[in-house]
Amino acid sequence: MATATKEALLRTVQPHVSHGSNKVTVVGVGQVGMACAFSIMSQRISSDVCLVDCVEDKLMGEMLDLQHGSLFLKNCKVAASTDYAITAGSKLCIVTAGVRQREGESRLDLVQRNTEVMKNIIPKLVKYSPDTILLIVSNPCDILTYVAWKLSGLPKERVIGSGTNLDSSRFRFLLSQKLGVASTSCHGWIIGEHGDSSVAVWSGVNIAGVRLKELNPKVGTDSDPENWKDLHKQVVESAYNVIKLKGYTSWAIGMTVASIASSILHNIGNIHALSVLVKGYHGIEDEVFLSLPSVIGASGITDVVIQPLTDSETQSLQKSAKLMAES
Amino acid sequence: MATATKEALLRTVQPHVSHGSNKVTVVGVGQVGMACAFSIMSQRISSDVCLVDCVEDKLMGEMLDLQHGSLFLKNCKVAASTDYAITAGSKLCIVTAGVRQREGESRLDLVQRNTEVMKNIIPKLVKYSPDTILLIVSNPCDILTYVAWKLSGLPKERVIGSGTNLDSSRFRFLLSQKLGVASTSCHGWIIGEHGDSSVAVWSGVNIAGVRLKELNPKVGTDSDPENWKDLHKQVVESAYNVIKLKGYTSWAIGMTVASIASSILHNIGNIHALSVLVKGYHGIEDEVFLSLPSVIGASGITDVVIQPLTDSETQSLQKSAKLMAES
Amino acid sequence: MATATKEALLRTVQPHVSHGSNKVTVVGVGQVGMACAFSIMSQRISSDVCLVDCVEDKLMGEMLDLQHGSLFLKNCKVAASTDYAITAGSKLCIVTAGVRQREGESRLDLVQRNTEVMKNIIPKLVKYSPDTILLIVSNPCDILTYVAWKLSGLPKERVIGSGTNLDSSRFRFLLSQKLGVASTSCHGWIIGEHGDSSVAVWSGVNIAGVRLKELNPKVGTDSDPENWKDLHKQVVESAYNVIKLKGYTSWAIGMTVASIASSILHNIGNIHALSVLVKGYHGIEDEVFLSLPSVIGASGITDVVIQPLTDSETQSLQKSAKLMAES
Amino acid sequence: MATATKEALLRTVQPHVSHGSNKVTVVGVGQVGMACAFSIMSQRISSDVCLVDCVEDKLMGEMLDLQHGSLFLKNCKVAASTDYAITAGSKLCIVTAGVRQREGESRLDLVQRNTEVMKNIIPKLVKYSPDTILLIVSNPCDILTYVAWKLSGLPKERVIGSGTNLDSSRFRFLLSQKLGVASTSCHGWIIGEHGDSSVAVWSGVNIAGVRLKELNPKVGTDSDPENWKDLHKQVVESAYNVIKLKGYTSWAIGMTVASIASSILHNIGNIHALSVLVKGYHGIEDEVFLSLPSVIGASGITDVVIQPLTDSETQSLQKSAKLMAES
Repeated sequence: MATATKEALLRTVQPHVSHGSNKVTVVGVGQVGMACAFSIMSQRISSDVCLVDCVEDKLMGEMLDLQHGSLFLKNCKVAASTDYAITAGSKLCIVTAGVRQREGESRLDLVQRNTEVMKNIIPKLVKYSPDTILLIVSNPCDILTYVAWKLSGLPKERVIGSGTNLDSSRFRFLLSQKLGVASTSCHGWIIGEHGDSSVAVWSGVNIAGVRLKELNPKVGTDSDPENWKDLHKQVVESAYNVIKLKGYTSWAIGMTVASIASSILHNIGNIHALSVLVKGYHGIEDEVFLSLPSVIGASGITDVVIQPLTDSETQSLQKSAKLMAES
Repeated sequence: MATATKEALLRTVQPHVSHGSNKVTVVGVGQVGMACAFSIMSQRISSDVCLVDCVEDKLMGEMLDLQHGSLFLKNCKVAASTDYAITAGSKLCIVTAGVRQREGESRLDLVQRNTEVMKNIIPKLVKYSPDTILLIVSNPCDILTYVAWKLSGLPKERVIGSGTNLDSSRFRFLLSQKLGVASTSCHGWIIGEHGDSSVAVWSGVNIAGVRLKELNPKVGTDSDPENWKDLHKQVVESAYNVIKLKGYTSWAIGMTVASIASSILHNIGNIHALSVLVKGYHGIEDEVFLSLPSVIGASGITDVVIQPLTDSETQSLQKSAKLMAES
Repeated sequence: MATATKEALLRTVQPHVSHGSNKVTVVGVGQVGMACAFSIMSQRISSDVCLVDCVEDKLMGEMLDLQHGSLFLKNCKVAASTDYAITAGSKLCIVTAGVRQREGESRLDLVQRNTEVMKNIIPKLVKYSPDTILLIVSNPCDILTYVAWKLSGLPKERVIGSGTNLDSSRFRFLLSQKLGVASTSCHGWIIGEHGDSSVAVWSGVNIAGVRLKELNPKVGTDSDPENWKDLHKQVVESAYNVIKLKGYTSWAIGMTVASIASSILHNIGNIHALSVLVKGYHGIEDEVFLSLPSVIGASGITDVVIQPLTDSETQSLQKSAKLMAES
Repeated sequence: MATATKEALLRTVQPHVSHGSNKVTVVGVGQVGMACAFSIMSQRISSDVCLVDCVEDKLMGEMLDLQHGSLFLKNCKVAASTDYAITAGSKLCIVTAGVRQREGESRLDLVQRNTEVMKNIIPKLVKYSPDTILLIVSNPCDILTYVAWKLSGLPKERVIGSGTNLDSSRFRFLLSQKLGVASTSCHGWIIGEHGDSSVAVWSGVNIAGVRLKELNPKVGTDSDPENWKDLHKQVVESAYNVIKLKGYTSWAIGMTVASIASSILHNIGNIHALSVLVKGYHGIEDEVFLSLPSVIGASGITDVVIQPLTDSETQSLQKSAKLMAES
């Protein structure tokens, strides 16, 4: 767009380049996808964000709305297209697309329909960004992460699901409320399936290294008069409650995903509860994805933390794995 | 919630206090209100955010969703209620509530309906936070800011409208695209009415202090072969376009409002294009609100910048003022 | 400074106010004090920072140097004076002033000399900011925090020492290096005296809730073949090493203090290892200050975490307390 | 460092990688270099910072002190060595090393001595990071940037000096103080030599697009009764004053450099006053470096802004260029 005015104002030394080194693609611009994209941009985790969706109007509207705030986003580049060519060179691709469960639809049918969605997305992402890390947010998260891994042909350390990172965040908020201590100082992990059968690792719940179980051995059990177990119940019900109340979840999942993105793009090496290939851990022999605390950095998962679990916790994990392997 | 476990873990020295010193209330938890609240929280402009709305389900859902991300928000306190008592002690109240224009509804009827909405909100806000600053985002912004000022009984420097701050932000993005320079380095102001009759102050548009008008005296006029005027046209059409494409605007207005909130709560003294009482400026004699570049800090507006305008710019402003005074 | 140009440019609506609501004073502009002030300003923990020192030249130089970067500090206000009147209304006063140990000087003599320094500072701070929280960074930190508490007449929850927060931070870095996991994901606490007799609470050291002691019961003991105990030894030697190498410590203590300041000014309620009045905890009956994990917010310390300690850990604490009580 | 405990805790999936994509090297760990490094790390502009100096003790001390604050720096990697091999793959190398003027030493002798310093540094940096951008902070900045350019063999757009970016920042602070408006809303540029002969471009000084010169045509001249010119005089004296008072300058130059680093590493495309090869601009025919407002991004300088200057401004620039060409 060289005009005489521009030419009078600026002497060009070399053409602009696009950045590339921290490019993030978000697939799906629904409430979840946009909360992810906005969280990543407003915290400046990336300076080059790319949106893809099949609904062009909505997609262009979201792009424009973000661009109009460019002044407040340190000029973060926002691009959008229905064509995956635009995603080329992404370091991280976040997949939030997917259909919702229809009334009366079986879970298996939902998986089938979203597998079709993944078939349409994953190969294109990998085609244009063969070195990318894939972060699957769509539900059911663990199964779709497995599907994405298979479709992608990528090594296992570069395909992850956001899994129970959100559940763990909710758990820490509830601990925080019960104890009057900031959630950042309340430590606890929800692992396993991102869903109804998730496992709260009560043995590890601690404040400043002090395990609640040390103070109250019944913590997390049915016989605990203080009923700490109820916090896990509330975690499981959280998504249902928020969806019932506002129609969808967005902010918390957006922030969770942004936090994972930060660990990857800044090569932080933080531990998050992430859906990873769990074959070989905790006695699981099936090739399934479930959430375990995992160290993540610029090259994807580097380590998985093996928490000593109680027998019943291990059985829960194995049961989830078995169900998943059969589906 | 004192349990034996908590008592074994923690020795209480004194009860927790709520913070108060930077409390922000957002009225209205639609897409605009939530984008404002989330932008303010995720940038840590406030650590104490209060949401009010008349639709309780939606309100509680939004509160929960934000709370579930508490871990990523440095434990920012989020409260919500349909009862304004919860807003007590707010330093800043942001009003995003309001009804939308019905098909075939006249503008005057819309004003009338939203005036009723303000009558329900403003006195309650001022009752619980008599020292607050009111920031009106609802549309039509300039008229509703006037209405809020009248209803509040507050001094004029503490009732402001977000006005053309968003229009100016969009303008700077478009300049940025045309020149290949970051929007933060492109300077230009849209003043007057937040709407179709806004005024682009072309004389002041500059890059590194170089006025485009110096390089191209026809900038902003109909006879400019480079058609820079089209950028202002695009600004005016922006809201329509985004609404047509995605159904509403949210991110850009949210970031704009967060930026104003930051100037207030951190007492920055930045200049924003804000809707203020313009009586006495630019020959306007009516008691109306329109946007002018204004210095804002912890006590509200401290100064208004008087830009030397061309005759036609002044006439546009005065015409907007006249129309507004009659409505 | 009203000039005709300013009057032509700006219409004053009301005078500027100073902010007040998050004012921080730093006493002492040596390397430690300046690292604290700069960390607080550059992270925007406060927007109103006040420097006090008795060496006027250095003080004015530091003020100017910070002010020259005002553009990058969101206009954070920086003031400086040798007169404590300037500190009026501080929410937090950070004391870094103090003399260093002379060669051959006994520890008791050092305490005596720095007690004199505190006598000159603390009453003036409290006179101008009776509601302030005092954060003592000067060494020996625990004793001087006690001295400051006595001199101030403030309630115990509002006089704290930065204590072993820095030691804990160093410990977590060393754990991080040994495990290849980000320090933010390595949890461990150093408590007790900020100095040679500090206590590493090995029982609580954990990664994702997994205690190292669970995996290796000898962790932290002399008989551990993996010699984890050496990490604590390195922590104790850290200050000596850094001082030997660069002459003083600055960055880490500055960031530690900024982190505590953030918990206070944003009312976060995080747990930090802070020097607090420990009488009544862990069997200590003397009126002394030592570091324990403590919850801190806008009103100061709200809770102290009681970690179940081993007998030898408790004895170390008690011994430190006894020595301190005698000094 | 694989211990049995680590092996029991973590299952390694793949080795850790170093990041690389935003690596920054700082050469020289004096007060300026460390203020640059700390500003870049604490604002998370890079997550991989490398320090080089020839004084090993000081170097190791600074590295340790930063590492001890790792917890507060999102695990930003800090490495240090006297061996330049450690800098390999840097996207940006910041040179702050250099000797100071001896009493009675001529300027030319100083240039000669610091040219020797550059001969020792620049080829090694380019050897290990052939695609790097060089940012020269050492003084005299403009001449040493030229020297570095010649020594490096890099294209001109990838060798820049921090130049008058700091002078412009000081100027905006002083404007801010005089007008009671945040420095971020006060616009003005100091160009030319970073030193006594710098040029204040008074024609472009503006607030919200309103030029002071429009309101007071004598602004910046000797005959101005309001003596705005004095602000430029204060800018020129700033460095001398700060050095006289505290012995060196650090914070403001550190923040200035961090801001430039951010524009480069986040590919922002902001305009900074940077020392660039000015041959061909403003009638300068010599191959010298002087500061002009320049657009900078991931590939270095993309554009230079040509401000319409008055005759006397142009003559000042040309005179500086001539002097520099002769030295």
